[in-house]
This record gives sequence, structure tokens and C-alpha cells, in this order.
Amino acid sequence: MVVRLRPVEPEAGGGFVRLRLHLAYDGTPFAGWARQPGQRTVQGDVEDALMRVTRLPAVRLTVAGRTDAGVHASGQVAHVDLPEETPLGGLARRMNGVLDRAVRITGLAPAAPGFDARFSALSRRYVYRIGDAPYGVDPLRRHDTISWPRPVDAERMRYAAISLLGEHDFAAFCKRREGGTTVRTLLRLDVARVSDGVVAADVEADAFCHSMVRALVGALLAVGDGRRGPEWPALVLGRGLRDPAVTVAPAHGLTLVEVRYPPDPDLAARAAVTRAVRVPPSPSG
Amino acid sequence: MVVRLRPVEPEAGGGFVRLRLHLAYDGTPFAGWARQPGQRTVQGDVEDALMRVTRLPAVRLTVAGRTDAGVHASGQVAHVDLPEETPLGGLARRMNGVLDRAVRITGLAPAAPGFDARFSALSRRYVYRIGDAPYGVDPLRRHDTISWPRPVDAERMRYAAISLLGEHDFAAFCKRREGGTTVRTLLRLDVARVSDGVVAADVEADAFCHSMVRALVGALLAVGDGRRGPEWPALVLGRGLRDPAVTVAPAHGLTLVEVRYPPDPDLAARAAVTRAVRVPPSPSG
Repeated sequence: MVVRLRPVEPEAGGGFVRLRLHLAYDGTPFAGWARQPGQRTVQGDVEDALMRVTRLPAVRLTVAGRTDAGVHASGQVAHVDLPEETPLGGLARRMNGVLDRAVRITGLAPAAPGFDARFSALSRRYVYRIGDAPYGVDPLRRHDTISWPRPVDAERMRYAAISLLGEHDFAAFCKRREGGTTVRTLLRLDVARVSDGVVAADVEADAFCHSMVRALVGALLAVGDGRRGPEWPALVLGRGLRDPAVTVAPAHGLTLVEVRYPPDPDLAARAAVTRAVRVPPSPSG
Repeated sequence: MVVRLRPVEPEAGGGFVRLRLHLAYDGTPFAGWARQPGQRTVQGDVEDALMRVTRLPAVRLTVAGRTDAGVHASGQVAHVDLPEETPLGGLARRMNGVLDRAVRITGLAPAAPGFDARFSALSRRYVYRIGDAPYGVDPLRRHDTISWPRPVDAERMRYAAISLLGEHDFAAFCKRREGGTTVRTLLRLDVARVSDGVVAADVEADAFCHSMVRALVGALLAVGDGRRGPEWPALVLGRGLRDPAVTVAPAHGLTLVEVRYPPDPDLAARAAVTRAVRVPPSPSG
């Protein structure tokens, strides 16, 4: 693979200190992670809280996984660069003091050199929860579990998932977007009935294109409830085109549970590689 | 023990069929189980749904555990007597179709002879969830988990709980009410850190007086975070009086998870015994 090296954003030094933040949130009240004018977003809430407690006029978070509207996180990771003189004592506690309880800063520390929440990440891992009891979903988990109207065979879904593992062009499961590759490496796609009776899909990839986890789950649900054979998701993948028969599963069943990074000495190298592969060449490049 | 037998309410026959219902609910939007004028209650929602799908002008549910405002249930049990000619096919499904997703009918069937949801019960079991992470509680579980501002030692709470087990007068942990006994048998009071890092108290008794679980948890929390010694809850119990130092833990950490009943042939006898012990004698009696 030819790696085009591109300039790396300043990450610390130059009078700034880079912080690594871990976050958990209930996506229900939010129009997703990314700041949007006139909408309540997780990024908006967290940046506002950070500005309020630091009294800085502006801050900008970079996140590992830009979750869609209604998607939750228990293990989201972000970074932010703050002026070196910013007092950092008790910063997480002070941010949690002003944040709504729908968002928590679960960890905060100066980042290791070379750390970039987005580009240093090795993989993102999501869990998707499906309730198929005749009555629906436990009311206390209805915010992060979808109700499926037909019984689901988790073993059949797990079997169908095997042929999706590995490096493929996932265009068939991606929302079309100009530029950028849709080649991804699917590292894990386990489906199992978990302790509370819910069917959970545990999905990990180096990165996901837009709506990819929910499209994969939608395809597997068609297998799980018997509408399609176990070979169908691999056929869809092979055709390389969005198949209208693949329904994108609802957002509220999805939670980002973990972002993995390499050991500290490899953070900068990983970021350089990812950046070269993932970011489309600029028009002049 | 002298058992005063009292007349038993008609439970079936006489043109009525008794149904046993299992229910789960998120207590957040409700002013508790019991119907109250001008308030949204679980009983109100469920009775309204039942009237709507059966077109009966009135129905009255009897419940195993009358949960307070904000308290949840995953294993609540109730009964209702309906005219024999009421069509019962798909009744649970039809009720779930009109109920808000905050309440689910998880089971519904004709009750065994002698069954009374309240008086036939052998025991009620509750779980109380306490998050003591510095950042608070996982946002997705904030509706059924309280945030405790100090670290909690679950082993110390479990040890303190041992001397509360068995039959005692729990007046020290009961809201005062005229009539009725405050003698209860505490069958289980386990405290442990569970898989998601939360401290959970698992509490079972033949029955609970008003706010008893939450007062027990409040007393144990004072032990768990080091404000009191492990002998303190037993001292409070022994004094037999409400101690203002015992805080009643917040309602939203509490979930009714199970109601246990004897084998079917013993249902009526159990109901007769409970009724005699629990219901105060009438003025003329």
C-alpha cells in the first residue's frame, strides 16, 4: 500500500497542551455528536461546558467516532488542545458539574505525544441491542434497545456474519459520500443472546463509514428472522452497491463502547498512516 | 401464632375469571403504582389500557408490590377479575399495543385457583443500584441508578446487613402508619459490586412496609461510605424508632425484580394466612 504522508496538525507544543477525554452519553436527546447550528449535540454540550469552566472563548473537540443522532456511547474518546496556562485541576469534575447527566466525562488526562483521538485509533467497537420478546423491550432499557417484531435466531446471524469479516469494500453498507474510500477491515461481528435475553451484535472495525454498523445489523436481522438465507449479506457485500432490501437498523439500538489505540510510542505513526489512507487527496494533490 | 380467618374476596366463579398479569415498567414518568386523581400512575395506565381493549366500563387491578413514585419494576405481579364472557385472545398483545413503552405486560394468563397477587405472595424482591464512580452514573443507566458522591465499600455493607436478616420489628425503617404490624421477615440483603461496576443491594422479604427498602439502603450507605460503623444499622433496628440519621435513599435506584408464590395447591392457604396477619382487625372485631 502506498502511503501518502500529509502534514500533521499541531498536537501539542506551540503553547498548547493536548488533553485526552473519555466520554459516555445517552444519545436520546441529541442530534448526534457533531455541532450543528440550532441543534442540541453532544459536541456542543461538551464544548460549552469546557468553555464555561475554563473561561476560554473557544474550544474545539476532535472525536474518535462521530455518532449519529440517537446513537449512544459508553467509551467515546476525544481530544482538545488548550492553552498551556489553562488550570487543569479537577477539570473533569468541574465539567461534570455543569453537564446534564445525559453526558459524563469519564476520564481526562494530558494526551501522550502523537495522540490524535481520530487518526491514532486502531479500531472502534459498537454494540447493537435487539429485543425480540413478544411484549417488546424491558422499559428500563428501551432507550438503548430496539424492539423487533419477530423472533430472532442469534446463531444464524452469527454464522451469516463470518463471511463479512476481514478487509472488503463495504460500499454496499455505506451511505454514498463523495471522495474517501469505503474499504474497511471488519475485525469482529459477533452476535449472541446476552444475559438479559436481548440479542446483541458486537461489531469492531478499523473504522466505519456512515451508517455502516446499522446497515450490517439490518442485513443480519433479515437473516435472523428468516426472511433471507445466511448467504445473503455476503452476496450484498460482493455486489458493492447499496441494496434497497437492506434496512438501516434504528439509531437508538447502537452504542459506541470502545476505541482502541496502539501503545504510546506508536501513536504518531498510526495517525500518519490513517490520515494518508482515510483523507481524500486535496484538489491540488 | 393465632390466625384469625377472615372472609376471602371472590376470586373467580360468580361469573368472573381471574387473570394473573406480569408487568415491567420504568417508574420515571409515574407518580407510583396506585391510582391517584390528577396523577399519571402505572395502575391508571394499565387499567385504562385494559378497559380500552376489553371495552369494559371499569376494571380494578390488585398488585403484589405497591411501588412508590419513581420506583421501577421488572417483575411486578397483579391480578384482575373480568366477566367470564370477556374475549381473552391476544389480550397482552392488545394491551401492549395501546400502552406507552414505559409499561409492558410481560405475561398474562388465567390465574390458578386461590391466587391473589397481593395475599398469596411469599416474598417480594428488590434491587437497588448505586453508582460511586467519580463522574457519576453511566448516562444510559441514570434512570435506575443513583449517583453516590463518595466511594462505597460493598463488603462492609454486606457485613452490616447480616444482623438485619430474619424476623424483626422493622418500625425503625418504616414510615409510621396507623394499624398494621411492622414485623417483617428479611430473607435476603446481599450487597455486591456487579458487572457494570455499580454497587447493587439485592433485598427480599415476605413483605416490606412503606419506604423500608430505601431506608435499609440509606442506613447501609452510611456504613458503606464510612460515616458509620458496621454495627450501626442493627443498633437502629433494635431501638425500634425512626432515626433521623437514617436517610431514605432516592426512589429511582429501586426496582421490584421478583414476586415469589407458593405452588398452586397452597395459594389459597397462603392468602388466608397473610390476610389474617397483615390486615388490622376491623373496629368491631
